[in-house]
Amino acid sequence: MIRLTPTPHIDALIDLAFAEDIGVGDVTTEALIPPGHIVEAEVIARRSLVLCGAPLAERLLWRYGPEAPSVTWAAPDGAAVEAGAVVGRLSGALDHTLVVERPLLNFMQRMSAVATLTRRFVQATAGTSAQIVCTRKTLPGWRALDKYAVRIGGGRNHRGSLDSGILIKDNHLAAAGGIAAAVRQAKAVAPHPLRVEVEVEDFEGLEIALEAGADVILIDNFTPAQAAKAVEIARAAKTQAQIEASGGVDLETVAAFAQAGVDLIAIGALTHSAQAVDLSIEVVQR
Amino acid sequence: MIRLTPTPHIDALIDLAFAEDIGVGDVTTEALIPPGHIVEAEVIARRSLVLCGAPLAERLLWRYGPEAPSVTWAAPDGAAVEAGAVVGRLSGALDHTLVVERPLLNFMQRMSAVATLTRRFVQATAGTSAQIVCTRKTLPGWRALDKYAVRIGGGRNHRGSLDSGILIKDNHLAAAGGIAAAVRQAKAVAPHPLRVEVEVEDFEGLEIALEAGADVILIDNFTPAQAAKAVEIARAAKTQAQIEASGGVDLETVAAFAQAGVDLIAIGALTHSAQAVDLSIEVVQR
Amino acid sequence: MIRLTPTPHIDALIDLAFAEDIGVGDVTTEALIPPGHIVEAEVIARRSLVLCGAPLAERLLWRYGPEAPSVTWAAPDGAAVEAGAVVGRLSGALDHTLVVERPLLNFMQRMSAVATLTRRFVQATAGTSAQIVCTRKTLPGWRALDKYAVRIGGGRNHRGSLDSGILIKDNHLAAAGGIAAAVRQAKAVAPHPLRVEVEVEDFEGLEIALEAGADVILIDNFTPAQAAKAVEIARAAKTQAQIEASGGVDLETVAAFAQAGVDLIAIGALTHSAQAVDLSIEVVQR
Amino acid sequence: MIRLTPTPHIDALIDLAFAEDIGVGDVTTEALIPPGHIVEAEVIARRSLVLCGAPLAERLLWRYGPEAPSVTWAAPDGAAVEAGAVVGRLSGALDHTLVVERPLLNFMQRMSAVATLTRRFVQATAGTSAQIVCTRKTLPGWRALDKYAVRIGGGRNHRGSLDSGILIKDNHLAAAGGIAAAVRQAKAVAPHPLRVEVEVEDFEGLEIALEAGADVILIDNFTPAQAAKAVEIARAAKTQAQIEASGGVDLETVAAFAQAGVDLIAIGALTHSAQAVDLSIEVVQR
Amino acid sequence: MIRLTPTPHIDALIDLAFAEDIGVGDVTTEALIPPGHIVEAEVIARRSLVLCGAPLAERLLWRYGPEAPSVTWAAPDGAAVEAGAVVGRLSGALDHTLVVERPLLNFMQRMSAVATLTRRFVQATAGTSAQIVCTRKTLPGWRALDKYAVRIGGGRNHRGSLDSGILIKDNHLAAAGGIAAAVRQAKAVAPHPLRVEVEVEDFEGLEIALEAGADVILIDNFTPAQAAKAVEIARAAKTQAQIEASGGVDLETVAAFAQAGVDLIAIGALTHSAQAVDLSIEVVQR
Amino acid sequence: MIRLTPTPHIDALIDLAFAEDIGVGDVTTEALIPPGHIVEAEVIARRSLVLCGAPLAERLLWRYGPEAPSVTWAAPDGAAVEAGAVVGRLSGALDHTLVVERPLLNFMQRMSAVATLTRRFVQATAGTSAQIVCTRKTLPGWRALDKYAVRIGGGRNHRGSLDSGILIKDNHLAAAGGIAAAVRQAKAVAPHPLRVEVEVEDFEGLEIALEAGADVILIDNFTPAQAAKAVEIARAAKTQAQIEASGGVDLETVAAFAQAGVDLIAIGALTHSAQAVDLSIEVVQR
Repeated sequence: MIRLTPTPHIDALIDLAFAEDIGVGDVTTEALIPPGHIVEAEVIARRSLVLCGAPLAERLLWRYGPEAPSVTWAAPDGAAVEAGAVVGRLSGALDHTLVVERPLLNFMQRMSAVATLTRRFVQATAGTSAQIVCTRKTLPGWRALDKYAVRIGGGRNHRGSLDSGILIKDNHLAAAGGIAAAVRQAKAVAPHPLRVEVEVEDFEGLEIALEAGADVILIDNFTPAQAAKAVEIARAAKTQAQIEASGGVDLETVAAFAQAGVDLIAIGALTHSAQAVDLSIEVVQR
Repeated sequence: MIRLTPTPHIDALIDLAFAEDIGVGDVTTEALIPPGHIVEAEVIARRSLVLCGAPLAERLLWRYGPEAPSVTWAAPDGAAVEAGAVVGRLSGALDHTLVVERPLLNFMQRMSAVATLTRRFVQATAGTSAQIVCTRKTLPGWRALDKYAVRIGGGRNHRGSLDSGILIKDNHLAAAGGIAAAVRQAKAVAPHPLRVEVEVEDFEGLEIALEAGADVILIDNFTPAQAAKAVEIARAAKTQAQIEASGGVDLETVAAFAQAGVDLIAIGALTHSAQAVDLSIEVVQR
Repeated sequence: MIRLTPTPHIDALIDLAFAEDIGVGDVTTEALIPPGHIVEAEVIARRSLVLCGAPLAERLLWRYGPEAPSVTWAAPDGAAVEAGAVVGRLSGALDHTLVVERPLLNFMQRMSAVATLTRRFVQATAGTSAQIVCTRKTLPGWRALDKYAVRIGGGRNHRGSLDSGILIKDNHLAAAGGIAAAVRQAKAVAPHPLRVEVEVEDFEGLEIALEAGADVILIDNFTPAQAAKAVEIARAAKTQAQIEASGGVDLETVAAFAQAGVDLIAIGALTHSAQAVDLSIEVVQR
Repeated sequence: MIRLTPTPHIDALIDLAFAEDIGVGDVTTEALIPPGHIVEAEVIARRSLVLCGAPLAERLLWRYGPEAPSVTWAAPDGAAVEAGAVVGRLSGALDHTLVVERPLLNFMQRMSAVATLTRRFVQATAGTSAQIVCTRKTLPGWRALDKYAVRIGGGRNHRGSLDSGILIKDNHLAAAGGIAAAVRQAKAVAPHPLRVEVEVEDFEGLEIALEAGADVILIDNFTPAQAAKAVEIARAAKTQAQIEASGGVDLETVAAFAQAGVDLIAIGALTHSAQAVDLSIEVVQR
Repeated sequence: MIRLTPTPHIDALIDLAFAEDIGVGDVTTEALIPPGHIVEAEVIARRSLVLCGAPLAERLLWRYGPEAPSVTWAAPDGAAVEAGAVVGRLSGALDHTLVVERPLLNFMQRMSAVATLTRRFVQATAGTSAQIVCTRKTLPGWRALDKYAVRIGGGRNHRGSLDSGILIKDNHLAAAGGIAAAVRQAKAVAPHPLRVEVEVEDFEGLEIALEAGADVILIDNFTPAQAAKAVEIARAAKTQAQIEASGGVDLETVAAFAQAGVDLIAIGALTHSAQAVDLSIEVVQR
Repeated sequence: MIRLTPTPHIDALIDLAFAEDIGVGDVTTEALIPPGHIVEAEVIARRSLVLCGAPLAERLLWRYGPEAPSVTWAAPDGAAVEAGAVVGRLSGALDHTLVVERPLLNFMQRMSAVATLTRRFVQATAGTSAQIVCTRKTLPGWRALDKYAVRIGGGRNHRGSLDSGILIKDNHLAAAGGIAAAVRQAKAVAPHPLRVEVEVEDFEGLEIALEAGADVILIDNFTPAQAAKAVEIARAAKTQAQIEASGGVDLETVAAFAQAGVDLIAIGALTHSAQAVDLSIEVVQR
């Protein structure tokens, strides 16, 4: 039931994308393409990928205006498609199709890349109860899109912004008087819809956090073996606290963390290191 | 003499980055950190990288307002720094430092990643006259920043937008009556400050393009050997046309293309597949 | 013939409303509501009120995009409706209806509140020739909406902004050389489509203002009895100057001011102290 | 440790406030006030109030530009001040002071009103453990400001936006298969930093919600006596679930709800029905 | 006492000017000019003109950021300067000076042109009591700047926008039931700070307008002789109505209209037909 | 095949135009015109002109919203129409037609003026191979519109912005080490899609520029006779360099420059000195 809600932030990013790419106009197209030349064009996956970006593409075309081509999709967001697959079809004026082509592809390539990479992490942890979650290491301007792509890939979102989650990290702890004081203070004054999560670096920190009533404990830079022990400690404490692993998790180590029994595995790479997957638009009928 | 000129587009992206990350405020910091707590913090490279983003970071702090920490840099943009190096220092209120931390790092991690990747391509072609150029496959909203990072990495920019270069591609050719007609038409009517570049797929296309007077010829998906032959043909034609290779160029094949004698090698991966390099901010003095 | 003209300021406020309320998306709805679930919903008045906000709501839905529900109205802006009345009906996808629900209601509750309060003041002065006018004490960002709601309630608008009316107040007078000099100077150089209004604090000021040719005289903090005397003085001066009362006027005293014969009664409370009236949206058919 | 973090949304609202109020310029001031006339002016509370808005006022002056007057404060945000108190002092050019006067006051009057009203509710529940929380019934465009003012008044914030809290309401329940299914689904897929809150209308709903593991249960339109019984049921269930009362709570009934033992009392009136408190700016030295 | 109040509209236009002119950066300067090269440069009038635009230029430099050159002025706005005169001096980095040069000059050339043309009309009517006023035929996006330049040139402003003046024109009259009905209706319901102006095409219309109590009567396309008769009629009516002439007024005919005794002469050409006056920036010290 | 590509910059300018002109609403129309009064109106050329602006007008109406009148055109952009010609027809509600009237006309009057003036220069050089080009002396905010109007008039565009052309001018030369060094440096490092243009002031500069391989040479302030000699020198150099004349070219001298054999004639007046041509909207059917 994943969806991308339209927001003015997304519109603002679309506007930036058009403004920076068009300048005063497409000089090549203006020189060569007659107005009103209607074509069909295909959006094609150049490699196997998890498709992501259809609602963004539709918003982009809507915002471009009535001159934009229309689009239909051959596969929904989240579908795993093979190299060569036609995933969508555009229909409209060639000149405007050429103007929207690159921004549309640049958005979808990135979004599909994030979804594809997330899916790989999710699949690597299949059979465990661990969930793959993203971080705030998203591309500036892209928060909602990156978060959506993670969900499409099968991941779960961590907090969307500084006001939608409490995460007490090392830079907070000294000023806040240590783990126990910080957790208690956050529980007392921060918005009550938020659980309190705290980052710990060792087992001692873990025990203090459990004692203080942290809802989620982020074990940072633990090995899988240490993570397993952390889970054991947490279970023994008979709290409902969740354990979230982070730091140094990659496609090779993620299964070990998942099997260690952690509830959540945070992976910044989902959004900061996704490499664009190749999509292209080909005019097929003139 | 590379620089990042401040523009309203960059400001708009910074604003989006703050808006999406702050929401109604940093609930963790508000719960835990007293106002007016002044600290020093270090910006640290977590791996070896080509640093990029200092002017962006300064603009971001300026736009945040008078409450923002100040910054000084230990290394200039373009410097190759080792893992562990302190590249900059922030000084100011801890609460505001924590708010700007993530957007600032998210910008610099991406910009340094692009510069670092570009540098690797440039170094792989050392000793040749080929130049590494980027494409329009940049992140939506990030055009000026991606282009700047490529320059910092040692690459050269291709057109910045649809109005700052003429590039006739396959989707134009059919509607425009073929290579020769398209090149001549573009030379006649497009803005005269622009050279005319045309994409060709084979040697026949190359010869037509040369004959028609193309200023730059993009040989797409040629092998290095084919590229060498293309260069030979172009040199024989006694024009000043430049040969630009694109398609399927990676760090393993780029040297072969460069040695084939092409003038330019276009690499979309510089901007669509750079993986964020790791930077962090650590509070060091309270 | 009252209407709300669409302007980019209103659109900007709608955008802010969506941006601040949606963040990266409606997590509750995404977790629970299947896409494409079509419903009918009613907009219901929870107490008796003067309805206001239909054109704003329509603009808000238009700006949200094609996914927004459609709306029809059972009562026009300005209608006095009873508690429990269905004033409008939405039809569309449940998920998007839930996203637009709160911003739409927040706008209409405030606008209806201003209209309802204005109507009460207008009714309290029925049978007199005094007109109820608003001030610039509107909510920042809401000027056009607040002014519209006052008109819907039966009030008349004072100046919309600093350039659409001349109002000489105490802070101007000292620097401008007193009432007479200020009025004459304003008549000589300010835009001629504007009448010249001056605030006075006593009868002496009133007589000077009349003598100087003020078009409107704002008697500030006069009692109803003083106001009656001011009207008498103004009528005796055989000018066409209008008398506007302000300061300390509430629902209990407004009739006395009206009966004193003043032309206009300025009431900041219309817009700075309207308490939201209760409207809700209920899904009625699934 | 409450603070107002600067965000582009706040800047956008400030810009709207200036744009709508200035138009093409202040015609009265231009006609009457010589440039460069430097004055001191006082910001004065006209009634007793809880002051709120200093950081907003500073941002507004900063954004106006170098021509703006400077400001110092005689009382911090959150201070209870008496009628007649001078709360701040402006120093600068009279013409620019007159331009910023009304927007500055309009912001502070509203923010102080929300803080003042919140303080009254908080004081009415003194001696209990109940906390006063706000809702999403804020003024469109004002979310961050309204939330801040509630905190300044001593209240606690509910979710800031749709992505910073899970609140399952009646309109969700039918489509989601009832309370138990909805709570479990939300716990499974929504962002883990968020607690799951569900609205119930009766004791049966309460028991189902407790059984399903809801973190917070919103008892809507319960009487104080019913609320007391709800608390009793929740305590008996030996969960950590919090009970939040809402609906029909006003200054006369709030103490009864607090004494009933509920953890939280949600009051939309804090932000939708605060009546502006009177502040003014008086030029005192020329 | 003329001044240009800073507004978000002006800032938005400055932003557009930079965004459209800079694109991703100044490629010429980046190729050729070392950073940190400090220069002095002169702003020079290339022909005699009435200078206008200093406050706009200062705002533009402020908005560009701390890298912008500083400026001082050798002549104030409104000064008549000779060809060759140095009117201002810039001091700062050459690269940034070259980026701001063209937008700054484009603004000032247009603003000085409007001021210069207005001054000519004003001088052509010297010795009469007629005032030269502008219209709404300003450049889209430039309303505040055009209006300011008219004032600097010695003209008076007509309404700044649709809400800052009532002007009943031919397209209104049929729908409104004719001149008399329209004037009375406008006086009854439009904001009271506004005078009521109506356009008439003949003497009959004039008499009806006078009878109906119009505050200003716009005689459109009257000859100077007809204008003189209109003035005579108006004076005989013993009202305070002002007569404003418009239509077909140019520098050759304006004196005749002024001598006919009209109060105001509206000239669209002030803003729709001002030809840019030549200003340049020359680097003088390196 | 000229067209105006929709961009967010154009939308932003349209928004500014509406915002500045509407304020809080059209008080005259609201007072006098009933809602829902449907009319037909004609857009009429008041003098002979080259029509320009239809796509801008359509975008403006689209952006205004569903309430806007619809439009059809009797003549395409670029058509030379006679005084009195009906060039377009609007159909829709009178009140909204009156709101859009002035912004729509203000845009089209300016755009048609630029097209008309350009056409005159183009016609004055008929029979030669010289092309008329514009400059960056466009109206701030209007770059894309001014450039489009020049093309509609038959001119060719110079660079659209600082990143879409290399133009080395006097202010660059000193810092860059003279013409030869500057040209070679620009060719080496600037984006390769751009030709290198350099401004010269005398024949010596010309010869250096030719020798250095400049692609275009701007001869500034040459007489027609000097221009002819410059062309001769350039042809003798057997390069493909183009000669562009600028400085002091007007409708009387342009033919002489064209006949001198230059390739391009740059004329700032096209955009900085076009005087608005008169268009009006008349309601014709009620």
